[in-house]
Amino acid sequence: MSDSTLPPLLAAEGWHVLHLYYRIDHATWSLLSPEEQIEAKTRLSELVQEIRATEGCQLLIFAMVGPKADLGFMLLAADLHKLNAFEKQLTQALGADILQPTYSYLSMTERSEYTTSDEQYAADLAAEGHAPGTPEHEQKLAEFKVRMTKYLKDRLYPVLPPWEVMCFYPMNKRRGEVKNWYALSFEERKKLMGGHARVGRMWAGKILQLITGSTGLDDWEWGVTLFAHDPADIKGIIYEMRFDPVSADYAEFGEFYIGLQVPLDELFRRVQV
Amino acid sequence: MSDSTLPPLLAAEGWHVLHLYYRIDHATWSLLSPEEQIEAKTRLSELVQEIRATEGCQLLIFAMVGPKADLGFMLLAADLHKLNAFEKQLTQALGADILQPTYSYLSMTERSEYTTSDEQYAADLAAEGHAPGTPEHEQKLAEFKVRMTKYLKDRLYPVLPPWEVMCFYPMNKRRGEVKNWYALSFEERKKLMGGHARVGRMWAGKILQLITGSTGLDDWEWGVTLFAHDPADIKGIIYEMRFDPVSADYAEFGEFYIGLQVPLDELFRRVQV
Amino acid sequence: MSDSTLPPLLAAEGWHVLHLYYRIDHATWSLLSPEEQIEAKTRLSELVQEIRATEGCQLLIFAMVGPKADLGFMLLAADLHKLNAFEKQLTQALGADILQPTYSYLSMTERSEYTTSDEQYAADLAAEGHAPGTPEHEQKLAEFKVRMTKYLKDRLYPVLPPWEVMCFYPMNKRRGEVKNWYALSFEERKKLMGGHARVGRMWAGKILQLITGSTGLDDWEWGVTLFAHDPADIKGIIYEMRFDPVSADYAEFGEFYIGLQVPLDELFRRVQV
Amino acid sequence: MSDSTLPPLLAAEGWHVLHLYYRIDHATWSLLSPEEQIEAKTRLSELVQEIRATEGCQLLIFAMVGPKADLGFMLLAADLHKLNAFEKQLTQALGADILQPTYSYLSMTERSEYTTSDEQYAADLAAEGHAPGTPEHEQKLAEFKVRMTKYLKDRLYPVLPPWEVMCFYPMNKRRGEVKNWYALSFEERKKLMGGHARVGRMWAGKILQLITGSTGLDDWEWGVTLFAHDPADIKGIIYEMRFDPVSADYAEFGEFYIGLQVPLDELFRRVQV
Amino acid sequence: MSDSTLPPLLAAEGWHVLHLYYRIDHATWSLLSPEEQIEAKTRLSELVQEIRATEGCQLLIFAMVGPKADLGFMLLAADLHKLNAFEKQLTQALGADILQPTYSYLSMTERSEYTTSDEQYAADLAAEGHAPGTPEHEQKLAEFKVRMTKYLKDRLYPVLPPWEVMCFYPMNKRRGEVKNWYALSFEERKKLMGGHARVGRMWAGKILQLITGSTGLDDWEWGVTLFAHDPADIKGIIYEMRFDPVSADYAEFGEFYIGLQVPLDELFRRVQV
Repeated sequence: MSDSTLPPLLAAEGWHVLHLYYRIDHATWSLLSPEEQIEAKTRLSELVQEIRATEGCQLLIFAMVGPKADLGFMLLAADLHKLNAFEKQLTQALGADILQPTYSYLSMTERSEYTTSDEQYAADLAAEGHAPGTPEHEQKLAEFKVRMTKYLKDRLYPVLPPWEVMCFYPMNKRRGEVKNWYALSFEERKKLMGGHARVGRMWAGKILQLITGSTGLDDWEWGVTLFAHDPADIKGIIYEMRFDPVSADYAEFGEFYIGLQVPLDELFRRVQV
Repeated sequence: MSDSTLPPLLAAEGWHVLHLYYRIDHATWSLLSPEEQIEAKTRLSELVQEIRATEGCQLLIFAMVGPKADLGFMLLAADLHKLNAFEKQLTQALGADILQPTYSYLSMTERSEYTTSDEQYAADLAAEGHAPGTPEHEQKLAEFKVRMTKYLKDRLYPVLPPWEVMCFYPMNKRRGEVKNWYALSFEERKKLMGGHARVGRMWAGKILQLITGSTGLDDWEWGVTLFAHDPADIKGIIYEMRFDPVSADYAEFGEFYIGLQVPLDELFRRVQV
Repeated sequence: MSDSTLPPLLAAEGWHVLHLYYRIDHATWSLLSPEEQIEAKTRLSELVQEIRATEGCQLLIFAMVGPKADLGFMLLAADLHKLNAFEKQLTQALGADILQPTYSYLSMTERSEYTTSDEQYAADLAAEGHAPGTPEHEQKLAEFKVRMTKYLKDRLYPVLPPWEVMCFYPMNKRRGEVKNWYALSFEERKKLMGGHARVGRMWAGKILQLITGSTGLDDWEWGVTLFAHDPADIKGIIYEMRFDPVSADYAEFGEFYIGLQVPLDELFRRVQV
Repeated sequence: MSDSTLPPLLAAEGWHVLHLYYRIDHATWSLLSPEEQIEAKTRLSELVQEIRATEGCQLLIFAMVGPKADLGFMLLAADLHKLNAFEKQLTQALGADILQPTYSYLSMTERSEYTTSDEQYAADLAAEGHAPGTPEHEQKLAEFKVRMTKYLKDRLYPVLPPWEVMCFYPMNKRRGEVKNWYALSFEERKKLMGGHARVGRMWAGKILQLITGSTGLDDWEWGVTLFAHDPADIKGIIYEMRFDPVSADYAEFGEFYIGLQVPLDELFRRVQV
Repeated sequence: MSDSTLPPLLAAEGWHVLHLYYRIDHATWSLLSPEEQIEAKTRLSELVQEIRATEGCQLLIFAMVGPKADLGFMLLAADLHKLNAFEKQLTQALGADILQPTYSYLSMTERSEYTTSDEQYAADLAAEGHAPGTPEHEQKLAEFKVRMTKYLKDRLYPVLPPWEVMCFYPMNKRRGEVKNWYALSFEERKKLMGGHARVGRMWAGKILQLITGSTGLDDWEWGVTLFAHDPADIKGIIYEMRFDPVSADYAEFGEFYIGLQVPLDELFRRVQV
């Protein structure tokens, strides 16, 4: 019933991302009969399957830690109309007013503007003594291009991992009266972001990070989604990054949400529906 | 039944603009019988038609993205009494407490105080070597006047486009202890706003922008409404403008709302009423 | 039933002022029978008449623009016990929980501390060449005293006008780490306030303004109530004042509310009760 | 039924103070039968009597001005377990969910750290020419000790006055990046506080003030409770103090609440229960 | 029914800590029959026993002071899945919607990065004249190691004391445009934290303090939990610490909560269930 007769609403590049967090209204839930409760859970299960089977869509499910939220979804969609239709259905799937939205965040996957270009990398190779045309230059450049193609695909069209712990928070770059990110030159910003990337690489294998852009789409400028196997690694990387100058001087953070990826039946059990 | 016996309440110049965003109370909605639900939707459909048929009024309808809101209206009216009467009716049209207001914003269309005057343009022409009285001066000046007349009409009495994506946010100019927009001279402000306008022109055809004034009318100083075909262009223009000095140093932003222009029947389907 | 056995609670000078804004709970209202609804409206109408007939009390009624509020009252009373008793009755007049308070503001009428004294004016006259004792000095001084007596009465014991548009907002003077109003000398403050008064006089006939004090009474230091015939004039004067140094450097603003003075029967129609 | 089997929880010095403000849920109240309403009011009346008869407890009752709150209590108790038990009972006394808490504040009476010590006063006397051992020195010092003993008792174990108007607000001392109270020396702070005390003494007889400490107990560092006969005096003293350097540079204020001390039967009438 | 089929989710070091504060919805509670109320309290009592009997879990129970919350839990768990399952059960244990979450905070126990290392202590001893290899050096170093092992265990795997008064608040280190903790060197930070520790040691025996880390886990960077026998000591230590330079210049504080450790039957009596 959610099929739209409208043409798809696609971005020239990247996917739409919606984080959705809810509390369950157990009083309303308890008014449903056991049969209605089973129907409701079946409806949500089928909707999850439908979304996951839809071209250009991904859906992750979380048991959220603490009463800020009981459960959460992370929905990715190429078509904004589809994302909009699916999010309204997810909210209603367990019945009217059962899922009470507590927080949500809209963003889009995007390329980093600070990524090293092929030309810059070739120039760096030359500066290191590997002149253009030499086999070493050509091989290293080819490897770089493969690496960057994968990196760009992972940013724009990521396949999200089933790691246990998820952390989401939105952030801004500071526009203070003294410290103002947007008054820095591109070169200054690129250099600062480089330090940030170095910290990120030190946590490879422990932390998977997805940065999505939300300037103009929601109340902060970026969304950050982290995945980890050990909750202490979430704390570890974010604490370490606070000392990185780009964060120390320019980062502003919103609310933090911690969710656990669990199968849907475990989620139902855990949130007691 | 909304007819007022009061004389119209008109501004000397410009129209009143009200952005209205709502969540639907599905639990209350589900208490209505199917017949009552059809009546309710018919009532809203007829009210939409009535408003659109009313002299000096425009109404746009949006499916809102994310649980911040389910649906939205953008209502323009020359007569503030009419705007007031229609907004109260829109809120009640689906039945008592079905539409729960989540955010609204009152503003007015207005001319820009930084627009180049005819005199300034004539002087600019003279400075470029086209002396007053020469055919080139006269022709260029005439074209300028036509262009400015259309520009002014588009700002004060706009006809809003049916583009798919709408973005709304309110904003202030900063009155910081160091960076204070209101302590700058008119010339400084005009120069800074000129850079802003240049960015806007680069997005022509992709972005349509309406700036409305709200100092004294609502909690911020301006409302910004953008229309686009590609959601990424919303993000693109606002991100690019952040680096423009007038934004980097002086802009403060409120909440951001993203809506999709859809026909009313598609809206009903999408929000599941 | 609101009669108090307590002695009146009067201020040595000035009246108490309470702005009251409400949303209507239409779901609760719709549970009343048509007879109960008529009784409820009659009860509110009679209470309005009673307040207006009470010595030392004034009451204005507003249809509020936008869903921030549906209707509003501005209640003035010499006796704080009376103000307290009447506001509780106004909130309940349409029935339990029908009027949901959304915002309120308590302040008192007060004299301006920056007003020119008779002595200062006499000295100014002398400085302009009109020596004390000359007919011109005496006449001008007498006229000044008449003007100031009326001005003081209008501030302390105002008779509020039936102008169509009302704007209310609370404000503070900034106590920043750099710009601190309360660290300025009286002379500096008086000079800055003089510029403000000049802007106000330029809008005479278009805007009527009442400044009331609320330091210690509510969450901001002053309440500002403006009356106009044209909504654009509200925007016009407040926007213009932002550039006045006293506002640019020292003013901080709360929420803005726009109401329309309408007869009670029109109000009932408009808010659909 | 509130009797606790736990030993009393006493502070080494001073009493616990809890300000409690509530709105009445009239819809829930109206569901009670007339008999149940009378029972409920009797229950609250008896609880008030019980608290007032309890060793080490005081209770004041207020009709609150404006819809921020309908009624308020100020509860003092030596035993924190008693305070805790009584506040839970006060909230429930009119029935489940009738009193809806809108604001509360926990603090403790405390001595001022800036009070002049006996030694300091003796040294001041000597500096004024009254050498220790002289009759004048001894007499003045004895008088000082009597005065300070009463002052200390009034701060730590106050008997609150039945004055008509009560004003409560919480406050902090600023820890700004430039102006930082906690980075000042004790001597600087003592000197600044001395100016504050001088303003306070000028309002003696018109204003009674109780400063209680709440660092670590609630969200601000101090609670300020003022009592007056004339509402304008509340505004007067707080406005005047804003210009005192210690306030101008270092004070930060929370929300302001105004209550009127009325007998319980008048309170019931006024809030329409 | 909370048993999870998922493997435990453990941190490499430390336990997860969740503070949970609730208001009781007495109106919903009063709809339960006396039998259902007894069942509900039994269910909560049994859950408390189950949690306390679970390997790697601790649970403290508080009667909260003031209407910010009626009751609170402090839940520690090695396994984040268990913590998540137990917190959802605690919230539901008295029945659907009886416990209304008002605040919660997620953090983890962690070692302090500013602790003196064995190597540093040995070097300090040598500098004090106790050369390595001397009996005094060896003995002091051995004692230090024992002390630090206990200190570390108390921080990472604490056994919480049954002291009467509990105070919880979250905090950040300031990242201001002038005063920026994260721009200081490790040595500067270690020195500042040393002063803080000295104040803490002066309150030994009166105050027990647990600092837990929450960067990336919740909205502030640390949670602070204090235990005391005298409520005035909570106020005393936190007030004293405000003057410590690390707090004066760099600390930012969230909301403060005060709870009293009472047996469960006393808690039920006090909150009137």
